[in-house]
Amino acid sequence: MEFDDRIDPTWQTLDDLQNGYYVIQSKDGFRFGIDAVLLADFAKTATGRAVDLCTGSGIIPILLSAKTQLERIDAVEIHPTAAEMAAQSVSLNGLDDRIYVKCADLRTAPEIYGKSVFDAVTVNPPYIRSGGGIASEGDMKLAARHEVMCTLEDVISVSSKLLKPLARFYMVHRPHRLADIIVLMRQYKIEPKLMRFVCPSMDKPANMVLIQGIKNAKSELKLMPDLYVYDRQGNYTKEIDYIYGR
Amino acid sequence: MEFDDRIDPTWQTLDDLQNGYYVIQSKDGFRFGIDAVLLADFAKTATGRAVDLCTGSGIIPILLSAKTQLERIDAVEIHPTAAEMAAQSVSLNGLDDRIYVKCADLRTAPEIYGKSVFDAVTVNPPYIRSGGGIASEGDMKLAARHEVMCTLEDVISVSSKLLKPLARFYMVHRPHRLADIIVLMRQYKIEPKLMRFVCPSMDKPANMVLIQGIKNAKSELKLMPDLYVYDRQGNYTKEIDYIYGR
Repeated sequence: MEFDDRIDPTWQTLDDLQNGYYVIQSKDGFRFGIDAVLLADFAKTATGRAVDLCTGSGIIPILLSAKTQLERIDAVEIHPTAAEMAAQSVSLNGLDDRIYVKCADLRTAPEIYGKSVFDAVTVNPPYIRSGGGIASEGDMKLAARHEVMCTLEDVISVSSKLLKPLARFYMVHRPHRLADIIVLMRQYKIEPKLMRFVCPSMDKPANMVLIQGIKNAKSELKLMPDLYVYDRQGNYTKEIDYIYGR
Repeated sequence: MEFDDRIDPTWQTLDDLQNGYYVIQSKDGFRFGIDAVLLADFAKTATGRAVDLCTGSGIIPILLSAKTQLERIDAVEIHPTAAEMAAQSVSLNGLDDRIYVKCADLRTAPEIYGKSVFDAVTVNPPYIRSGGGIASEGDMKLAARHEVMCTLEDVISVSSKLLKPLARFYMVHRPHRLADIIVLMRQYKIEPKLMRFVCPSMDKPANMVLIQGIKNAKSELKLMPDLYVYDRQGNYTKEIDYIYGR
């Protein structure tokens, strides 16, 4: 593998995204999951200029660069090590002219980029509500899962500021937070317009939800058919294989 | 059929609910559908004293009397003809000691019954948002489908007043109104706690949603596995047959 000299194998891996691109991840940090892959696919209708919040390894911008005609994708990550790896992955894939990684607290994003400048926001935020202050800022893995560095309200209120009128917000989250998500989206004028539940298999309840909102849009929600991850035989469904590009 | 002399066959029918009970309906008025049957089944965890708003033919209280141990079910219907038929159906089934039909505007229900008196509210409200004033009060069929006589906000705000703390609210509605439903439930302190989508078949998006809220509860939504109406062969699924008691 020609890029092997760009990573430190003692703590990093170089993962093949099966679409010509690669991503650097830390071995024992937070590693991207199927939720990021599904979100990038769900957001493939995005056009113009997008920003990915809580970008982590940069997986979503890298996948979006393959799946969309987006002209420019900004990517925000608060943790310096993760942001640096994301920037390395971008360079390694030759995407420096489309993806711009910034190490910053997402709450400062409207000051960095300006208000009403993006056609799309994507975000795979931490899912778990936190009592607050349970982790040090250094704990990258914990902060990716728990609302330590930012809350759901931060994510949605900042997205609302960043989005142009009628621009699109794409998020993946957990169904148990759905009432909070919808209430906050409505509160910050990102109307929920399209929703897709992701179920592990046919007889199981959804454990992920993909949601698209439109800034300042009228109320009318459309549901897509559920997305199933595994079939009755325990294999990935055809749709999952298709999304993964297999 | 021994009850045939209780109905006027020129404009009424007597429908067998397959559980030992019958319901009188008008031939060309609003006739109950699968949504009412699914809601009654979804609400079978109700105990104590319940009230069914927008009761129409009384289908939901009659089904609930078979499916639950509810001590008393009040039923509110604004249209005099529908309320009269509902009361007739209650008598005909020998349920006068459990179901009490009232012809009233549901917005007056807290004055009629008092506040914080019910352990459960069930409601299969009109689904379609109305511009207002598009129908005369006499049009029973239209008012059952469109928000002519009451809005979603009326239904939820009144339910909140009627419910005791931690009492349950059960509603069936359409997914395209889900953002409105969740925002209004949160606003009126009925927290969405359990949700089930109903899909015509496996590959189709949901066209109904069953939602249970709990008055003054904390935020945490649970999803049930989807309920499918038809199987791949176009027959009712086993679960639907089971709910219908077949």
